[in-house]
Amino acid sequence: MPILTPEQLRKVGITIFEKLGALEEEAEWVTECLVEANLTGTDSHGFRSIIEYMDFIQKGYYRPGAVEVIERETPSTAVMNGNYGFGYVIAKHAMELALKKAKKTTIAAVGAYNSNHAGRLGMYPLLASRQDMIGIAMCNTGAGVPPYGGLTGCLGTNPISVAVPTWDKDRPFLLDMATSVHSGGFHGLRRSRGVILHEGWKVDTEGRPTTDPNVKGMMLPIGGPVGYKGYGLACVVEWLTGCLVGLGPSVTNQEYRGKDMNDILMMAINIESFIPIDEWKERMKALYYAVKDSDRMPEVVGDRRLVSEILLPGEPEWNTRDVRLREGIYIEPQTWNEIVEKAKEIGVDIRGLITWIEHPQRTPSTRQIQM
Amino acid sequence: MPILTPEQLRKVGITIFEKLGALEEEAEWVTECLVEANLTGTDSHGFRSIIEYMDFIQKGYYRPGAVEVIERETPSTAVMNGNYGFGYVIAKHAMELALKKAKKTTIAAVGAYNSNHAGRLGMYPLLASRQDMIGIAMCNTGAGVPPYGGLTGCLGTNPISVAVPTWDKDRPFLLDMATSVHSGGFHGLRRSRGVILHEGWKVDTEGRPTTDPNVKGMMLPIGGPVGYKGYGLACVVEWLTGCLVGLGPSVTNQEYRGKDMNDILMMAINIESFIPIDEWKERMKALYYAVKDSDRMPEVVGDRRLVSEILLPGEPEWNTRDVRLREGIYIEPQTWNEIVEKAKEIGVDIRGLITWIEHPQRTPSTRQIQM
Repeated sequence: MPILTPEQLRKVGITIFEKLGALEEEAEWVTECLVEANLTGTDSHGFRSIIEYMDFIQKGYYRPGAVEVIERETPSTAVMNGNYGFGYVIAKHAMELALKKAKKTTIAAVGAYNSNHAGRLGMYPLLASRQDMIGIAMCNTGAGVPPYGGLTGCLGTNPISVAVPTWDKDRPFLLDMATSVHSGGFHGLRRSRGVILHEGWKVDTEGRPTTDPNVKGMMLPIGGPVGYKGYGLACVVEWLTGCLVGLGPSVTNQEYRGKDMNDILMMAINIESFIPIDEWKERMKALYYAVKDSDRMPEVVGDRRLVSEILLPGEPEWNTRDVRLREGIYIEPQTWNEIVEKAKEIGVDIRGLITWIEHPQRTPSTRQIQM
Repeated sequence: MPILTPEQLRKVGITIFEKLGALEEEAEWVTECLVEANLTGTDSHGFRSIIEYMDFIQKGYYRPGAVEVIERETPSTAVMNGNYGFGYVIAKHAMELALKKAKKTTIAAVGAYNSNHAGRLGMYPLLASRQDMIGIAMCNTGAGVPPYGGLTGCLGTNPISVAVPTWDKDRPFLLDMATSVHSGGFHGLRRSRGVILHEGWKVDTEGRPTTDPNVKGMMLPIGGPVGYKGYGLACVVEWLTGCLVGLGPSVTNQEYRGKDMNDILMMAINIESFIPIDEWKERMKALYYAVKDSDRMPEVVGDRRLVSEILLPGEPEWNTRDVRLREGIYIEPQTWNEIVEKAKEIGVDIRGLITWIEHPQRTPSTRQIQM
């Protein structure tokens, strides 16, 4: 059972990306994002993604070393052409520019297009919260999710992420969610791990409900009986990304979207322009304890699960991170073998780089395999 | 069966508010919002609300003629103290200021606190889309919705609304949704009409599922099995309203929140700073037709209903508006009688003002009573 330390994964990731011609910043930041995704329990966007990235770089979809160009700019906004660089790096630069602008103008928004996969979206708002700012990120994705009541992929999983600083610098509040029931990566992860989906999450191409991650089909917008709300949120993301800063809605650019690209919008708000940051942090603490003290639901309502503890947004991520820093990152054997094989193809011998094989008998804990 | 024309309701509303000391702008705008809510099918936020408003003005919770004060301002942001005026008017002024600022700075945000009920939130982003801008509105409400897995009211129904212009000036796209399964007003409307709730929407105070709108209990966040997403969105709204521009999270200000108050945030984005407005409208058209052409779901999936037509955000509102402009606005007899009685109490004789009683035998159509 491959269980690895963050350091081992970093070594592997950076070696692979540099071998494929990535600049130091690209190799390091993309790897950092993948490792952080695994550490925080977002395995859907973790190291498993590197298989696709190796493939896409080889095929020329990604252009290592690409320099994004600002095509339109005001003191509080900008739009970048990402020139097919690493989406992770373009998104980081977009948020960094939004932060720089918002420090002067209070609120700022920076978008980008021609940008490859940006990975776990939560990484970018966290750049803001680390600077005591509010960070908001959203992006469209390939049009694979049907509208409410529909059966044709028209919108992406179109995630939204928001991070705000709290009194604890290591535990900002973080919302990071697809507007569909789950992300495409989560679907792939369940397939790799042989875990079925929740009922009502997916339909096959004929519109029949299925829980099989191997069946060709579509994920649905969030909301259950009010699924038009998830669909509406996905539309909002499409308006503010593909339509406002990209080349149009992703459904009308299917060929362009075929390679897992994202049109992104990064927003930053300077808290200090509204209230003193210490007061903000006190408010976050008050909210935390008020919510934390909620009584728990004693029985299942509808298809909601029972929880053992009331958690604030981001808390699952930081709790999991603490565990995995101690216990390591589990990657399912099938995925790990694919990574090793694909790396060999590009001339990187992972088994020569790291010694994960030292713990072959170790079984992953619940916290290591939770999805 | 009371079925009224918009003109009749306008006459009643304006007379009532002016009788209670409201300025002309206040009486007209609040009435306009109530009538528009009914016309667009949002009866939950329609004329029925006037009963509570009459009561709250009498009790001194609302201060007709109050002037909001800008307490903090930058070229792209502002925070207003609403001084307990009509929330509708404060929210309108906040959006108007955001629009004025965004025309200069591309993006702007204006918040307000000490503000009474702002009603149907969608009214304010529509002020933006009418000027070819993107409007985003959100507000917190009294802390009546539990966190995911919880049983104590910690967050409000915390709605989010976004409107964008399209090629048809009378039919902008509009998302207007509570982050809970429905709004407080919708719950009250079902109670008035004797219609039960959907399963999984509500729990009683012990956490037992109930579909009875008369039972004391709590509405749940949207999302079903992924209800933590609705809960997370409600947190985002709380961060950006009560925490950023208000007096703190509503759960820590329950006494202050007891009178149906909202902390609001209005944002505006100038589309022309990103792309030519004609191109934007072409993109909206392309998105519309691509989504509209989706095949329809052939069977029920989970607890999702089947639809007879794929609709874009806002389309249900505009379709209903067309019908009700022709057929009139239905108000359930119980609610109408309450309005008449309460108005009598403050010295307004509604039956002397209008002649709705001319159509006593008329039965409301499906489109007139849909919720």
